[in-house]
Amino acid sequence: MPALLPALSQRRALRAFDSRPVPPEVQELLWQAVSIAPSHGNTQPARIVVAESAVAHSKLAAALSEGNRSWAPAAPLLFALLANPEHSPAQPNSDGTFREFWAFNVGIATGSLLAQATALGLTAHPMAGFDEPAARAALGVPENIRVAAVVAIGYPGPVESLPPDLQAKETAPQERIPLANLVAKDRWSEAQAPRARELRKRQG
Amino acid sequence: MPALLPALSQRRALRAFDSRPVPPEVQELLWQAVSIAPSHGNTQPARIVVAESAVAHSKLAAALSEGNRSWAPAAPLLFALLANPEHSPAQPNSDGTFREFWAFNVGIATGSLLAQATALGLTAHPMAGFDEPAARAALGVPENIRVAAVVAIGYPGPVESLPPDLQAKETAPQERIPLANLVAKDRWSEAQAPRARELRKRQG
Repeated sequence: MPALLPALSQRRALRAFDSRPVPPEVQELLWQAVSIAPSHGNTQPARIVVAESAVAHSKLAAALSEGNRSWAPAAPLLFALLANPEHSPAQPNSDGTFREFWAFNVGIATGSLLAQATALGLTAHPMAGFDEPAARAALGVPENIRVAAVVAIGYPGPVESLPPDLQAKETAPQERIPLANLVAKDRWSEAQAPRARELRKRQG
Repeated sequence: MPALLPALSQRRALRAFDSRPVPPEVQELLWQAVSIAPSHGNTQPARIVVAESAVAHSKLAAALSEGNRSWAPAAPLLFALLANPEHSPAQPNSDGTFREFWAFNVGIATGSLLAQATALGLTAHPMAGFDEPAARAALGVPENIRVAAVVAIGYPGPVESLPPDLQAKETAPQERIPLANLVAKDRWSEAQAPRARELRKRQG
């Protein structure tokens, strides 16, 4: 009987971490998951810098948005997902425009990483809320390299370790748009147009 | 003993498909894998239009690059991954610039989709080589919606069904940059700077 992969269905972007470090051999499996992800033309644009020392960890944590600084610094494994956009050549359109693919490629690798982390019993939480110049400065990353995301990883910890407003989020059910708004057959449907937030309101 | 997830390690972007259709209940698991993928602020920007009818399938196949047209039309399941960039709000930097996240978010969902497809015994091959205006026209997609990728999915078929130049690719070993060029500790390393192609040349 085909079923949803537990490494996908059991994933949640939790925020409470245990202080137990992520062993090197477990980290290596995470990097392998990034490594074997596909990329167009096998260009493999993703790179990783791990904030391992206390100084680097604290500098990268300081580059996060205020909201993320309230929980992510407790993650034992904090790193930046990087890419040189020139490694992923833009694809031409018939109207003379070009499409970039570096962010999409790093996203696929992140999807692999999250599945692998979940299979290993880890919480893995990618973040968009950070200051890119500060994240670059924290890790000595050159200006031509883009920071696609900062990721916090660790073993799940007690909900009580979080600020009260985040404790509620931690145990809230996963909210997703219905498949009828996600997928259409043969032709774009107006049912696909609304934002997730708008669809949530309509459902009440 | 922790190990690499088979849904990741067994994935290959193969090109030879069997003509057996992908049953609706199996397709639904693929869409669920996209649905449960994380996105920043739970904005869920990914949308899917499946080219199900023979007409839509043939129009979407015609929007592919010449290279992809030599194999992808044989895939029984062909669809576009779409997003409205406005659904994924750009993130501000301290220097006044903004970072887009829609492509990264759709990438994560694609990573989930590929893992789920692999777990179901399917070949899933995302493509960057397509004409975006033609892909939009094929599926009636409005101009404000971006086409992140076109994906070909099906059960693996005989290598002999492919043109000779693609048969060799189908059985070639997976080439990846060494982890020493992928990951650095605390600080960006010059070892991370070269393109994958350049690193391959150096390895001989």
